[in-house]
Amino acid sequence: MFVLSSRLKEDGAEVIGLGLCVVLLMKDRSFPWLVLVPRRDGVREMHELAKADRAVLMEEICAASSVIGTLFKPDKINIGALGNLVPQLHVHVIGRFKTDRAWPGPVWGTGAMQPYPPEELDKTILTLRSAFKTLA
Amino acid sequence: MFVLSSRLKEDGAEVIGLGLCVVLLMKDRSFPWLVLVPRRDGVREMHELAKADRAVLMEEICAASSVIGTLFKPDKINIGALGNLVPQLHVHVIGRFKTDRAWPGPVWGTGAMQPYPPEELDKTILTLRSAFKTLA
Repeated sequence: MFVLSSRLKEDGAEVIGLGLCVVLLMKDRSFPWLVLVPRRDGVREMHELAKADRAVLMEEICAASSVIGTLFKPDKINIGALGNLVPQLHVHVIGRFKTDRAWPGPVWGTGAMQPYPPEELDKTILTLRSAFKTLA
Repeated sequence: MFVLSSRLKEDGAEVIGLGLCVVLLMKDRSFPWLVLVPRRDGVREMHELAKADRAVLMEEICAASSVIGTLFKPDKINIGALGNLVPQLHVHVIGRFKTDRAWPGPVWGTGAMQPYPPEELDKTILTLRSAFKTLA
């Protein structure tokens, strides 16, 4: 049975469920930052997924990347599956700006999460959800 | 025409050419660290690749991940496509150990590359090449 790890649940807000992944918005308004979690139990590494799931994951990563590119017009998109702290397989898709706090380094571990005001969080989720339905 | 960026050429040593990507070994013995570069001109973001290329890229990323997992038995594998400094699309596949210099953070920008002695570099490339031929 698929259970979202408590750390991901705490740090993210659900945006939409795609064919394979749950898409979360990280509660850090420093970056347009999505995390995709394949709904498969006990998978830590990408190569442990079945081949058919891997193909879907790639398409969902690229859908998330297109959504961020279209909505936020970042200078670059960063994609990462690390999992050193949270072993459940999850893939970060992050819009990066030359003016953001971590540029040109990676974002992980660069500072405290900057929470969205509640209304802005809700609005951002709705905008993202609608973009996934249109673009993905 | 596909040309490997000068920075990737300088930092990496060619291991093998797969269907889509050139596989490089980063010249930093701190980590078993591969970089996959799709042989497509002018691509910066993963979602800019054609769908067929994306499926192949996913399989080649997973082949690299399996090779690193089998040969080096890391505690975790990190996969990342960042490109903030080198815009040519390239994907890092890195074996991580709880004892490595950057754990549990990401490896990028964490210190000077620790060069392989020439014989060890050659031997590592041959071992990796043989593993790609067997496992991939």
